[in-house]
Amino acid sequence: MSNTHPHGLEFLFHPSSIALVGITTAETGHWTHTFLDSLIEFEFDRPMYLVNPKGGEIKGHKVHRSLRDIPGTVDYVIGLVNAHIAPQLVEECAQKGVRAVHFCTSGFSETGDEQRVKLESELAEVARRRGIRIIGPNCMGIYCPESRVSFSPAFPRDKGHVGIISQSGGNSIYMVRQAALRGVRFSKVVSYGNACDIDENELLEYFAQDTDTTILALYIEGIKDGQRFRKVLEEVTKSKTVILLKGGTTEGGARAAAGHTAALAGSRATWDALCRQLGIIRVSNIEEMVDVLVTLSFLPIPRGRNAMLFGIGGGASVLIADEFESRGLTVPGLPGEIMAQIQEFTPVAGNILRNPVDYSQAMMNPDGIRRTLDIVSGWEGTDFVVVFIRTGQFVHRGVVPARVASWAAMLFAKQGDLPRPVAMVLEPSIMPEEAEAIWAGILGCVAAGLPVYFSFASAANAINLVLTHAQNRPATA
Amino acid sequence: MSNTHPHGLEFLFHPSSIALVGITTAETGHWTHTFLDSLIEFEFDRPMYLVNPKGGEIKGHKVHRSLRDIPGTVDYVIGLVNAHIAPQLVEECAQKGVRAVHFCTSGFSETGDEQRVKLESELAEVARRRGIRIIGPNCMGIYCPESRVSFSPAFPRDKGHVGIISQSGGNSIYMVRQAALRGVRFSKVVSYGNACDIDENELLEYFAQDTDTTILALYIEGIKDGQRFRKVLEEVTKSKTVILLKGGTTEGGARAAAGHTAALAGSRATWDALCRQLGIIRVSNIEEMVDVLVTLSFLPIPRGRNAMLFGIGGGASVLIADEFESRGLTVPGLPGEIMAQIQEFTPVAGNILRNPVDYSQAMMNPDGIRRTLDIVSGWEGTDFVVVFIRTGQFVHRGVVPARVASWAAMLFAKQGDLPRPVAMVLEPSIMPEEAEAIWAGILGCVAAGLPVYFSFASAANAINLVLTHAQNRPATA
Repeated sequence: MSNTHPHGLEFLFHPSSIALVGITTAETGHWTHTFLDSLIEFEFDRPMYLVNPKGGEIKGHKVHRSLRDIPGTVDYVIGLVNAHIAPQLVEECAQKGVRAVHFCTSGFSETGDEQRVKLESELAEVARRRGIRIIGPNCMGIYCPESRVSFSPAFPRDKGHVGIISQSGGNSIYMVRQAALRGVRFSKVVSYGNACDIDENELLEYFAQDTDTTILALYIEGIKDGQRFRKVLEEVTKSKTVILLKGGTTEGGARAAAGHTAALAGSRATWDALCRQLGIIRVSNIEEMVDVLVTLSFLPIPRGRNAMLFGIGGGASVLIADEFESRGLTVPGLPGEIMAQIQEFTPVAGNILRNPVDYSQAMMNPDGIRRTLDIVSGWEGTDFVVVFIRTGQFVHRGVVPARVASWAAMLFAKQGDLPRPVAMVLEPSIMPEEAEAIWAGILGCVAAGLPVYFSFASAANAINLVLTHAQNRPATA
Repeated sequence: MSNTHPHGLEFLFHPSSIALVGITTAETGHWTHTFLDSLIEFEFDRPMYLVNPKGGEIKGHKVHRSLRDIPGTVDYVIGLVNAHIAPQLVEECAQKGVRAVHFCTSGFSETGDEQRVKLESELAEVARRRGIRIIGPNCMGIYCPESRVSFSPAFPRDKGHVGIISQSGGNSIYMVRQAALRGVRFSKVVSYGNACDIDENELLEYFAQDTDTTILALYIEGIKDGQRFRKVLEEVTKSKTVILLKGGTTEGGARAAAGHTAALAGSRATWDALCRQLGIIRVSNIEEMVDVLVTLSFLPIPRGRNAMLFGIGGGASVLIADEFESRGLTVPGLPGEIMAQIQEFTPVAGNILRNPVDYSQAMMNPDGIRRTLDIVSGWEGTDFVVVFIRTGQFVHRGVVPARVASWAAMLFAKQGDLPRPVAMVLEPSIMPEEAEAIWAGILGCVAAGLPVYFSFASAANAINLVLTHAQNRPATA
């Protein structure tokens, strides 16, 4: 294998066998059990071995006392050992014919401690000398649903087309879990940590050639080779939609990044320019990243910026129009003849038939709502439709399942049923008594192929980012 | 009573009797039942009458066929009748000796229909001639927990010090319900709609002299007398902290506002200047309004901008530091001697002892966490402490109640226990199985007197707004 051939990394995503070395035999619920739990949950169907000098058994699986004691061959190791013995583990891996080690272990250069910085260099050096590839240290490694490899038992088992390269384990988990709840599915996810061997550049080269991935999310704290980074990004943006969340854009954030993955953060202006030049969607926080992944996955690209907003509440209508227009989207007024069409079957008091269309008083009239949606979405001035339900403004406590079911019947048109793309804003509730009903509503949206957002601002923001990207794309790609 | 004497409105908040005129006898769950349900829930303890020409009974309460038929006197009427008979109802109220009518009824100037604009003028004219005050039309009226008057059964029964003047009913409900979930309590709330008689200026004059209110939230779509508005705002900002959400700041939003409360929106620059000059906290959406109300209610004003951030996750630490610093707050690095104090009892691997302090690996060590919190919050470089728990990044599904209880024991210090003010970021979950445990955590924070936020960005944003206001106050007030 070679550093310059991206496909050289393909084997990482399809290990023929895995050994978890350093898993704790004592406690269940210990962090080292995460990987075992995940492989069990994913029904990993190739050989899996546990290693701990104490031997014994964990959850019915034999624990080998050393890598050497394993009867079969071992392709891929997840290293959970103490940092100080990491280089020694690589030596043992070499003797066993292991091709790659993912070190979850932390306590290396990210501590800032001189001895530990040296330890990481030593680890990289041993690996290079022995021809073993290293992911990490200080990271969560690989999630590849197709090959039943995961670092969280909570990730979806089915695969999709979104790839993630993330320097942070926690942030990669956040992105996968939160986007998955809204229907997004993934091809391959790599949490790569301190990057003492395999780094963002090599991973980008890999993903540039990965036909399973069409959308690529990056969480980067810092890079080591800027010129090569730019070059591989240029390559990957030719065939994928790339979204970047840069951690450490402030002094405090950069200091935190140094302590997290020993990354040198780089200036904000440099990153801004890079994204602009390469047509990369730049997001400013992780919630925004998830919103953009949802948008790219479920909203057919609207032909323009004219939003038709449709929902409940006069005050809410004013605020959602402000959110959309303040982000460069347009909320065009409905012409008189369209309003007249709706007024034929809709009372004027309590319904505001402009844009937004406030259908407050007619919630008891599903037929009228569907007719109105058909009319406004068919109007030539409409480029996309956003239906909004802000539960926090309701007079009564308790959004009951029956109510959400009735919304669903009225509103949750399947993506493609209306002449324009449809998005949904469905505000969650922190109250347990309401959470279940709203969760059913979210699942309904996902099943109908709709992007679902949790606030006016996040919907407007994500749709604007994706539209801007689509509109600039011909010029940059 | 007089338009120029603010205390002339005091009686609105303490009606000696209420009649609900035009309540529907047919359906329960109809919107006209909202007020009955609310008064029942609040155990309104003065005479309450229902009026509908059909007579009969609703929920055990006799329905009178007309206002005239009511045996006792009627002080205050909630008008739920059709818009067209509203002026006639005012005449009947005059004959009965009613002092004020709140018209929930819509279908007036907000429709843009010439006849209905005229109808609203007629309504105002009749009221003026007969010496009856009108709230609305097209609004939710009054919430005053002290006098057991409410327009939502879901509002808190106990009172506090936050007042609201809101042109929108739905937005006032949103503010009360969402802020109440996080512990905020209210003195008096008025949803005043089209303001054909009592307007924002008169209400501001009232609140300027209301000693029950120390914090005043405004949701305004448009004003009719700008000069007077400025004058009364000047007055009210002398004794209250005022927060403004201006609806209709964009062209589309202004059009929606015209259709909602017939308001003329005014330019964004004018509103910006007004807020700057008078030391009003300007918020840009309703979620931000709630965050600021929570902050003002629960965070003792920090002496400065230095945030000590303390939580779980390296990637989360980077992102929260970025959010705080990008909003003008500072995340100072911990000096070596403070780090050394913590390292005496804390493993270096898996814990990042800088600022943010990432205590990922030590969650099993409550004692260490409390000692660390004591040390970092006692450091002279710290002005306030923010503890963060981002549940969305956890490897395992299911934030169980036991886990939240253990966080509570470790982290939820009572406000005042640590040498600096403490705020909490506790991310909710949309998954029903997690919502209950997190809800318990939110309630724990509220009981401990902590402001609780749902994202890094919202915490940073609200704390910055409140700090900026506090720092500018001496110059403007």
